[in-house]
Amino acid sequence: MNELVFVGLGLNDEKGITVKGLEETKTANTVFMETYTSLMPEFSLENFKSLCKKEIHVINRQDLEEDNGKKILQAAKKGKTVFLVPGDPLIATTHITLRIDAEKQRIKTRIIHGISIISAIVSLSGLHNYKFGKTVTIPFAENFSETPYNVIAQNKQTGLHTLCLLDLKADTNQYLSINQAIKSLKTIESKKKMGIISESTVALGIARAGNDNPTVKAGYIVDLENFDFGEPPYSLIIPGDLHFMEVDALIACANAPENLRRNIK
Amino acid sequence: MNELVFVGLGLNDEKGITVKGLEETKTANTVFMETYTSLMPEFSLENFKSLCKKEIHVINRQDLEEDNGKKILQAAKKGKTVFLVPGDPLIATTHITLRIDAEKQRIKTRIIHGISIISAIVSLSGLHNYKFGKTVTIPFAENFSETPYNVIAQNKQTGLHTLCLLDLKADTNQYLSINQAIKSLKTIESKKKMGIISESTVALGIARAGNDNPTVKAGYIVDLENFDFGEPPYSLIIPGDLHFMEVDALIACANAPENLRRNIK
Repeated sequence: MNELVFVGLGLNDEKGITVKGLEETKTANTVFMETYTSLMPEFSLENFKSLCKKEIHVINRQDLEEDNGKKILQAAKKGKTVFLVPGDPLIATTHITLRIDAEKQRIKTRIIHGISIISAIVSLSGLHNYKFGKTVTIPFAENFSETPYNVIAQNKQTGLHTLCLLDLKADTNQYLSINQAIKSLKTIESKKKMGIISESTVALGIARAGNDNPTVKAGYIVDLENFDFGEPPYSLIIPGDLHFMEVDALIACANAPENLRRNIK
Repeated sequence: MNELVFVGLGLNDEKGITVKGLEETKTANTVFMETYTSLMPEFSLENFKSLCKKEIHVINRQDLEEDNGKKILQAAKKGKTVFLVPGDPLIATTHITLRIDAEKQRIKTRIIHGISIISAIVSLSGLHNYKFGKTVTIPFAENFSETPYNVIAQNKQTGLHTLCLLDLKADTNQYLSINQAIKSLKTIESKKKMGIISESTVALGIARAGNDNPTVKAGYIVDLENFDFGEPPYSLIIPGDLHFMEVDALIACANAPENLRRNIK
């Protein structure tokens, strides 16, 4: 059957894929994979090949951008084609265009979801999902922007938490660290002086979500800015108003100091 | 090893679990499962048992609430205990208390994430993740609340999309339909008259996310309020400002009418 199936690889390693996703891969005529949009720290292509027993065409950013996914679309016109993507295949905007192009060319598309960093971070944090506002990405210093600070300020106004994704270039092994992200927010604070980020602001850093040993550390900015989170990838949450159940979770599961209780609202 | 491993079952059926999650289940000393917090329409306990080859203790809401998870904690003190939960195990607040209790009793906990409805819906919608504001649940008529309307209004003020989860009681097979959810929002509109929900408001309904044939239909409220979305579970998105790429996706992948283009901002 001619179709393009987007399959999520999930997080961390070759076992982050769902049983369903692996089955779809095994029964495909052609399999493509990209690993540049996100880091899967313990992913081994060799191990994955032995799981799915398929030849895998690994494509990089340049391939996909230069030919607009033509290779993938051509394969999908001939038979069942699986495109493997880290995390969930369509939660980042990167591959939505490919799906639109396929549908416009009357190629049927399906999505086999994968674990997304977006939900994994919320789950690991112990914070309540319905209290998160808009998500934002904190960019590398060379793309400095005040937007993350403004989004945090806007969310805080209505008591909401902010999930900050930290920029990465997986293909060149560059990851914005939690420490650098905090520094960037403090720089904007020192200019805008809205009282959004200070040493006593509560924050939560998460490294290696989806790994067996993620580092999850909550506390005040002063505790986190020099904390060693270990290997990437990284995320940062700046909470808004905290419910006592959330503070309980941060103390029990995210190594937060007992005096975080004074921040319960 | 004594530990409590929360494992996500993901969406739809027994193959929604990750390869990693299945392995953890296979190597557990004791396995518990709850299926009342969410509907997995095609899940078969028999099929799952033959996948993991384990005895599974299915627990219901009453079990867990009455004994505060004592059975699970006692098992976790004796050996590796897996607790299987639909979706991602800790993205709803339901089981956070159990994790806190375990950690307080010095039982090590780990999370094997599962596909969450939260990220699957965003991925299926074609809308941009960083443009979603606060998420809200639309309750059954007997728990009527103006909160969902207010959250949509607040998100729209800053151009943000609202993901509305529709209430469900999986244990008694009750699901708020998309049609009922729209009706509820219109009732509040007729009272508050803030111009948030009208016949020409853009909306997006999704049924059976994670299934091979989800129903995804975007259009104006007038198109959606009598649309047949088929079997549950259901979700509803009320978009804020729409980028042309998002409208492209809604037309190509969510069956939206061409005249949705007049809503591009």
